[in-house]
Amino acid sequence: MSKVNIALDIMGGDLGPHVLLDAAKKSLEHYSDLHITLCGHSSVYQSFINTLSGDLKARITLEECDEVVSMSDKPTTALRQKKQSSMRRAIDLVEQRKADACVSSGNTGALMAMAYYVLKTLPGISRPALISWLPKAQGKKVLLLDLGASVNCDAEGLFQYAVMGSVFAKLCAGVESPKVALLNVGEEDIKGNTLVKHADQLLRDSQSVDYIGYVEGDQIFAGKADVVVTDGFTGNIALKSSEGIAKLVIDELKRLTTENFTARLLSKLALPFLKKLYQRMNPDQYNGASLIGLRGIVVKSHGNANSEASFYAIKQAYEEAKNAVPDKIKTKIESVLMEH
Amino acid sequence: MSKVNIALDIMGGDLGPHVLLDAAKKSLEHYSDLHITLCGHSSVYQSFINTLSGDLKARITLEECDEVVSMSDKPTTALRQKKQSSMRRAIDLVEQRKADACVSSGNTGALMAMAYYVLKTLPGISRPALISWLPKAQGKKVLLLDLGASVNCDAEGLFQYAVMGSVFAKLCAGVESPKVALLNVGEEDIKGNTLVKHADQLLRDSQSVDYIGYVEGDQIFAGKADVVVTDGFTGNIALKSSEGIAKLVIDELKRLTTENFTARLLSKLALPFLKKLYQRMNPDQYNGASLIGLRGIVVKSHGNANSEASFYAIKQAYEEAKNAVPDKIKTKIESVLMEH
Repeated sequence: MSKVNIALDIMGGDLGPHVLLDAAKKSLEHYSDLHITLCGHSSVYQSFINTLSGDLKARITLEECDEVVSMSDKPTTALRQKKQSSMRRAIDLVEQRKADACVSSGNTGALMAMAYYVLKTLPGISRPALISWLPKAQGKKVLLLDLGASVNCDAEGLFQYAVMGSVFAKLCAGVESPKVALLNVGEEDIKGNTLVKHADQLLRDSQSVDYIGYVEGDQIFAGKADVVVTDGFTGNIALKSSEGIAKLVIDELKRLTTENFTARLLSKLALPFLKKLYQRMNPDQYNGASLIGLRGIVVKSHGNANSEASFYAIKQAYEEAKNAVPDKIKTKIESVLMEH
Repeated sequence: MSKVNIALDIMGGDLGPHVLLDAAKKSLEHYSDLHITLCGHSSVYQSFINTLSGDLKARITLEECDEVVSMSDKPTTALRQKKQSSMRRAIDLVEQRKADACVSSGNTGALMAMAYYVLKTLPGISRPALISWLPKAQGKKVLLLDLGASVNCDAEGLFQYAVMGSVFAKLCAGVESPKVALLNVGEEDIKGNTLVKHADQLLRDSQSVDYIGYVEGDQIFAGKADVVVTDGFTGNIALKSSEGIAKLVIDELKRLTTENFTARLLSKLALPFLKKLYQRMNPDQYNGASLIGLRGIVVKSHGNANSEASFYAIKQAYEEAKNAVPDKIKTKIESVLMEH
């Protein structure tokens, strides 16, 4: 692939389009073979364009879109009534092969519904999955899926997630043979509900991934697995619970350092360290959950992502395009189906 | 109730019986109306008894048990073959009304299986649930259930958990009208799988608890709910994921403070604050998950609980006995069944 074209929905996100435009600029500076198609109102991006140098300006295309998907739109409403929206247009450009990937920080439910409807799943894949990097001990990272693309899932679906997660880890993190685990309430064979036990059997019977068995919730962030697989209901709750407690720990720490004079003095000294901790635990660099299993690349950025975090989402989309992730998933799934 | 008798399994736990014996001593000193029945090998507790004052000694009974349930015993094996174990005896004493509650830090699966088999569920309750306190913002706490007592659950089961959790919060935390929420992947009505939607309907149709609707994972630790209800599979994973990330944040912080000279100096100054943070986030004071919905009180202490944490597990059992939690759950469930 000589150059990468990313369609960026600049109307989504809680912090306004300027955050996304900043991230677009940074991405263009970072990748000389990147082209970005901005989807949104011209009134929003016109003044921004004028601040860019000639080289960057040459690598930007504008796509005028009249409608915006709001955070309160139901997925079905967005799907039926917002066909001219910036989100929909970004996905359409991928479907029409005019863009290699799209990025949006808008309404997650609407994005998933539209992407599923417009792009369709790859042959052999029943449902798409939302996948993202999470921090792990010793500065490592781990992939968790499904984070909520579908709330009902069968064992075959979990098996497909394992295959897709393995391909993703290999391509986007360069892990030669990614270790894949199933999330469960215990590590022993007898533990778990019917769903997870059946998926375990499918994975044991197959040679398609380096399957290491069950891991418990705490082992997501400490264990040997490069990829942890679960259904969308559990995955979403595991992710959000973890975000909740991490926030609680950091908030408590901040509060402690303001309690008295020594503490306030200490907090001044400690500031660089707190900052470093925050950076290391920072969701920014893990921003960009990818909707995989579709015939095109879709990256969901956090609604409250700042320009730094939004840059990481674009970076994620760029890397998936460079590595032709959907094609590689397709090839792998085909070979797994042959194996059966 | 004039006095409380607690049967303590002193053979469970990873740190050895001395931790539990220390906790027993501390509990007897703390509650003058507490009596403890130590279940285990006499060789283990005999030398301990000799160190106690006459008053404490008078409030201890010894129950010689030849067998021990190991951490590797399968629940079914423990149930069939370890009828003379310290764990089983502690539960039997509750069933025979010789003890008001039992506490064990042994094999969780075996404890749950034995307790379920020996004590049976209360009339109107399909399955027991494991419930525990978790830390929340502003030094508050929240109850989460089920933490893994059963991995398969229907909507009626979730409804019963909500009722039991509400009674538990009222009795053990003095919340007059506990706010109860269902854990889900979104707060909107349309979100969630079939199970959670059906349970939501049952709770909306009933007047039996102060139901506030759905909460997402991060809202467990920040939201308005006093009680958060979910199935045992999701609850276990939410709990363990949270433990995992909290450990990661605190480990990273410790590691940062050893990185260079300033940091090491700072860490000396910061030590009291780190300690305070750790205490505030400390699982010790939240130790003691209760198995509720049975015709008797069963408290599970962490396998690696120290004597401080073990004290909290005994305290939890004491409070449940004082407040006659099973009787109150029974009465409430009966009134709810009348309402239907």
